[in-house]
Formats: sequence, C-alpha cells, structure tokens
Amino acid sequence: MTVLTMELRLNTRGNSDVVDITRRVADAVRKSQLRAGIVTVFCPGSTGGLTTIEYEEGVIHDLRRVLDEITPPDRDYLHHRRWGDDNGHAHIRAALVGPSLTVPFSDGRLTLGTWQQIVFIDFDTRPRSRLLILQVMGE
Amino acid sequence: MTVLTMELRLNTRGNSDVVDITRRVADAVRKSQLRAGIVTVFCPGSTGGLTTIEYEEGVIHDLRRVLDEITPPDRDYLHHRRWGDDNGHAHIRAALVGPSLTVPFSDGRLTLGTWQQIVFIDFDTRPRSRLLILQVMGE
Amino acid sequence: MTVLTMELRLNTRGNSDVVDITRRVADAVRKSQLRAGIVTVFCPGSTGGLTTIEYEEGVIHDLRRVLDEITPPDRDYLHHRRWGDDNGHAHIRAALVGPSLTVPFSDGRLTLGTWQQIVFIDFDTRPRSRLLILQVMGE
Repeated sequence: MTVLTMELRLNTRGNSDVVDITRRVADAVRKSQLRAGIVTVFCPGSTGGLTTIEYEEGVIHDLRRVLDEITPPDRDYLHHRRWGDDNGHAHIRAALVGPSLTVPFSDGRLTLGTWQQIVFIDFDTRPRSRLLILQVMGE
Repeated sequence: MTVLTMELRLNTRGNSDVVDITRRVADAVRKSQLRAGIVTVFCPGSTGGLTTIEYEEGVIHDLRRVLDEITPPDRDYLHHRRWGDDNGHAHIRAALVGPSLTVPFSDGRLTLGTWQQIVFIDFDTRPRSRLLILQVMGE
Repeated sequence: MTVLTMELRLNTRGNSDVVDITRRVADAVRKSQLRAGIVTVFCPGSTGGLTTIEYEEGVIHDLRRVLDEITPPDRDYLHHRRWGDDNGHAHIRAALVGPSLTVPFSDGRLTLGTWQQIVFIDFDTRPRSRLLILQVMGE
C-alpha cells in the first residue's frame, strides 16, 4: 500500500469557472503505477469546490443559473460588510459543493462514467492561480 | 492493507428515486473480512448522487420538494436545447449532491447512526439499470 | 499502512450551529504519527453535516440565511406530520451537505488553506451531545 501526494496547478477565470481536470487526475493515477485504490482531490481554500459533471456548455450554464438563484452574487452579504469583500456567495457555494472528491480506481483506471468529468469550480470573484492537492492511495 | 473493488447493480425508477443500499454496503464490508478502514461508494455517471438520509417516506418526499424548488424539472434548461434532452435538472442535482460517499468502518461494522441509511439517488428522468462502484480499503 | 479510528465528542447548540473542529482533527493526525494519508471525518446521524468554511461570523450568518431560504425551518414538512417531529429541514440540509469529509495530509499536516476550517454543522433543532468518527489512514 502506497500514498503519493501531488500538487495540481491551474489558472481559473473565477466567477464559478468550471475547469475539467479529469485528464490530469487520470495521469496522476497512471504515473503512480498503482492498480487499485482511491484518488482524493482537495481544494486548500474556502472559495473552491470539487465535484463531477457532464462537461457540456449547456449543463455548466444551467448550474451557474441555479447557483446564482440560491446564492445571488449581488446580495448584501454580512461577510462583505465585515471584510470589505465581495465574494460572500463564493464562500457559501464552496461550503455546499464541498472541497473534497474521492474517486476509486481499478486496473489503473478511474471508475468514471463516459459522460462524467472531474471538475474544479472556482467560485471566487476574480481569476486565480490555484493549487489543488491530488493524493493517490492504493496498491 | 487491502483494496477490494466490487460492483453493485440496482434498478431504479428514476425521477429522484432514493434507493437504500445500506445492507448491500454492509455486506460488502463483511465479505471483505477487513476490520477497519473506509468504504467508498461511487456513481459512474453524471445524473446520480450518493449521500445518507433517514430512509423515511416523509423525509424523502420533503427532500424531493426542495430539489424541485431549486432545480425545477420543467424549466427550459440550455442542456435540453443543445441535446434534445429533458434531464437538465438531474445533472445539476447530481453535481450538488456529489457522486461519491466515504464511510468509515471499525470492528468490521459501518459507523452509521441508527436512523441513518446510505442512499443512491437516481436523478435521471427514466427508470435505469445502474452499476455503482463499491470499494473497501483497510486492514 | 495503518488505520486508526477515534471518536470526537462535542456539544452543540443545534439550529445549524457551526463548530470548528480543525484543531482536534489536526491533533488526531499528529497523534497518529503518520506522515501521509487521509483523515475521514464522519457524522453517524442524519441531521449533521461536515464541510470546510472560512470560520468567520459573517460567512456563517450568510450560510444560515441561504439554508433558511432553500429549506425553511417553519415549513409544514411531511416528516413532521408522520413523526410529530420539528426537524424536517435538518434532515434535508444534512443530506445535501453530506455526512462525510475526507482531507489529505502530508508531512504530518492537514493540507488545508490558511482561511479554511473543518466544521461540523448540527442542523438539529436542539442542543445535542454529538460523537463524530475520525479515522486516520496512511503511512
């Protein structure tokens, strides 16, 4: 049993930018040469989230619309008043979607569906350079 | 330390059908003969989600009502226009609930509460035959 | 590779009380003397959730407001009528936020961001004494 911890760097446009990181996660599993186990993708920060989605422009647009409805960006969040910030909605979205995703792999391959991609969503209100944690554990 | 990857097949009615898979996950842990570790349940597909809930008709009804409010099934989703599909809300629900659930076990038993069940929710708009990944890792 | 399963006891005020458990999770990792792996925090119960957040009063207030909007506490939930209960919204919030959080650690330290805390949210409608599962797995 082995644990490999890597970093994944990416640039985002912010504002709920949805970034497909499937290939990079699959590459990390391949490089680990492990056959079976889990890969944990983690965002060290409180304005980003990890999940899976069919990476298709329509779905991404629809998801953003729902997020805008339940956590409107232009609302007067208390977080703004306290910190002179403008990303109150980003914090709530990140807490709801969650900072962590665990995907099993088997025979050296992620167990994803055909139309399912691993995505990082940057909820912050500006383009950012992000560093995600990518940890592979298995045998 | 051992990793065991299994498949769990189930038939759903779709339309946010909530399926209790607790017993089958517990059986997998028992069969593994491992004492302590985690079981990861994963949905390889972008219209299903994993979580826990008190599996009670009232709660399930209430959950569906909230999901219908924040992601209305009859809305004109962009995903529909692009793909002639009718399951735009299913994609959003799946991304929000998440495709993966990790449950620790100890002394060979899942650490669930008494009124807490592991459920797969099929958000798609038709009955489906699903295959979930069930991976047990531990010692 | 080692698995250590611990319990974390805490008292909450209920009503979406957000409790910062970061230090206690970090202590558990330190005590395990493991260098790299994952810690899984799990709530054995169907009215609590785990996630990360910037533990700041404004953000916590804003999160509760959004939760109150999408799952109003004073609604006539079917769960109430069936069980004479008053925590229908708590069950839905718990299912949406999720009962499980997986955080990687490396060099004996959690890979959290500076402004990111691990929190347990007690959605139930009364103060409760809770027992969380904290499992460290790694090498």
